[in-house]
Amino acid sequence: MRQVGIVGVGHTKFGRWDGSLIEMLGAAALEALDDAGIKPGKGHGVDQVLVASMGAGILNRQSSVASALVDTLSLQPAMAETVENGPASGASAVKLGYMAIASGMCDVVLVVGGELMRVVTGWEATDFVATMLHPEAEYIYGLTLPAFAGMFTRLYMEKYGVTEKDLAMVAVKNHEHAMHNPVAHIHLVPNFQAITEDEDAHVINPYVAEPLRVYDVCPVSDGAAALVLCAMDVADRFSKRPVRIAGIGQATDTHVVAEREVPTDLLAVRLAAERAYQMAGLGPQDIHVAELHDAFTILEIAISEEVGFFPKGEGHLAVRRGETKVGGKLPINTSGGLKAKGHPLGATGVSQIVELVRQLRGEAGGRQVERARNALAVNFGGFGNNVIATILTREDG
Amino acid sequence: MRQVGIVGVGHTKFGRWDGSLIEMLGAAALEALDDAGIKPGKGHGVDQVLVASMGAGILNRQSSVASALVDTLSLQPAMAETVENGPASGASAVKLGYMAIASGMCDVVLVVGGELMRVVTGWEATDFVATMLHPEAEYIYGLTLPAFAGMFTRLYMEKYGVTEKDLAMVAVKNHEHAMHNPVAHIHLVPNFQAITEDEDAHVINPYVAEPLRVYDVCPVSDGAAALVLCAMDVADRFSKRPVRIAGIGQATDTHVVAEREVPTDLLAVRLAAERAYQMAGLGPQDIHVAELHDAFTILEIAISEEVGFFPKGEGHLAVRRGETKVGGKLPINTSGGLKAKGHPLGATGVSQIVELVRQLRGEAGGRQVERARNALAVNFGGFGNNVIATILTREDG
Repeated sequence: MRQVGIVGVGHTKFGRWDGSLIEMLGAAALEALDDAGIKPGKGHGVDQVLVASMGAGILNRQSSVASALVDTLSLQPAMAETVENGPASGASAVKLGYMAIASGMCDVVLVVGGELMRVVTGWEATDFVATMLHPEAEYIYGLTLPAFAGMFTRLYMEKYGVTEKDLAMVAVKNHEHAMHNPVAHIHLVPNFQAITEDEDAHVINPYVAEPLRVYDVCPVSDGAAALVLCAMDVADRFSKRPVRIAGIGQATDTHVVAEREVPTDLLAVRLAAERAYQMAGLGPQDIHVAELHDAFTILEIAISEEVGFFPKGEGHLAVRRGETKVGGKLPINTSGGLKAKGHPLGATGVSQIVELVRQLRGEAGGRQVERARNALAVNFGGFGNNVIATILTREDG
Repeated sequence: MRQVGIVGVGHTKFGRWDGSLIEMLGAAALEALDDAGIKPGKGHGVDQVLVASMGAGILNRQSSVASALVDTLSLQPAMAETVENGPASGASAVKLGYMAIASGMCDVVLVVGGELMRVVTGWEATDFVATMLHPEAEYIYGLTLPAFAGMFTRLYMEKYGVTEKDLAMVAVKNHEHAMHNPVAHIHLVPNFQAITEDEDAHVINPYVAEPLRVYDVCPVSDGAAALVLCAMDVADRFSKRPVRIAGIGQATDTHVVAEREVPTDLLAVRLAAERAYQMAGLGPQDIHVAELHDAFTILEIAISEEVGFFPKGEGHLAVRRGETKVGGKLPINTSGGLKAKGHPLGATGVSQIVELVRQLRGEAGGRQVERARNALAVNFGGFGNNVIATILTREDG
């Protein structure tokens, strides 16, 4: 199979975007094109544009966004599609871009993920996100993602001894990481004691979906991220050394969470990771830095177990030991994660890869992981019903 | 590059669907799986599911539809994504499925296109479709697809001598074809004289967007269509002989129609077809049957010229000579086309391929084109801003 690399990354500041969806996607895309040394207009060489968005239709009432982006960037006659896979839309677009190049149909693919989602707030935002749930078996009963995560957390606590303080440690860690990431949404580190032990902890960190509190849940953010993918055999056209996509694995699980045999297992994560490791010829012991889909703090812990970093039920112990901090044995969510960097749904899977490319290039500044060579991203759709694991490798030299 | 074929087709009756979006997609998918001899459940062998839909979000307020479909069909752990490219979403999904197999990442891909769009009618439907236009340069001025097609038709009439009667001939032809297609939405053939010359022609066939009348415009239809794609090297697993995908070409043009140098040219159609011919090693003279995106009657004529079937400005003369009817030299839209079979947006590009597979297999009954060996489909997004041409070839034996 033809090898594929990444030669350009771009990322808007997550938070609030004051322009249109297309302008936001365009801003990230232009940064990625510029990073690769591609000039839009005649002779640009981009064969395919893939846009990842979950809410372009529901929230922004727009279709054919990918065609509009091609026009905005003057990338005609590049092929263009929009890809939707809930909160895993971004990794899906990267995967389809990988296939486009590996097939030999394309040499260069621009992948852009973005969500202009602060057009809704509060329950409307939660309701929008809940459109990914099963319409008849879940959504109509008022189930939401925080509700699922709350129930999942309770089961995890009872089964494995995870505590609210473990969750708060994940949150504080990711907020500390985000302080060093200029594109993160939230640059603020909550005081561990203030959000867990102080008399008014329940006031500044109230329950959202018990036992999950405000600081266990990602914010609602606008934002976009972009990548330039190319065939490794044409990588010398570009200004940046390629980071190679070494493995991609994806798996679906039951759409209805209640149908899972063991509700604390995330089988799609396990299978997606296994497939990615197999394709890359690597194992969990070879990974030096990871971005794991922490839409809720419990998910960082559970995913870190399912991908084989820690035994099942012991991920929270690694958090307690500080192993998952920058400086620890296996730093997780150095970008700040969904928790502090933000989670503009369609952007997230692309943003995770942007962070890992920066890590593998040594461009991550105050959050740099030393000697990082292999990196893993896990982008999680639904409540674990469609999961993609992507492994990146820094080439020698 | 690894060769890709089609071994299963499925299609709901276009018109009104009384169940849910997922049920409709599932009905077409099950028919395609059954046609290929694939049993859902353990050992199904489907690696990837791609769903094409333009309105799942805007109209049906659903996301993650592809994951839901995997669950409904018991196709876990197949990978799954939804693809959106306006009215060309279907052909985009076929293209991405092709890439998935050609890359070596997949052996078997299920492609399902569908739209549950009769939840809106009248101006609401027209407004939904208009979400594919440029939001700032077109949509906010009240431009709609029928308005564009009307202006395009007027220019075509003035430049090339096309008449309203030529358009009516396209409509009557396609309605005649649809009479032989059990899955077509409309089984009714308008009388040519009654809709063009009779005293009350303007009453039964009034202007929608002058010079386009009711019978020049496709209906609003629910419907779904599905294909099973496989690598040619595993095709003997399946019950049906494969029809090979010989070429795929796609091109984007300016999103804003007013920015085109010659507004009567459809450059993206021309380029997409050229690319598809080149990949297939064929030319327009080699095509025996075609499905061309006749959302408006004028488009069948204009596309038939841009793909090289007839010289520019002479497509309507071929219609007058009867060449594009079943039984003529080059039958176009034997399915009834978007005009009479219906145009459930995300379904259309898949439905075109279903029809051509049936033609190449010799399963097209009363609309069968004799000795058809090579077939062309053109699926048209926006007002020609993103176009995909697909060429199918019947294998020997």
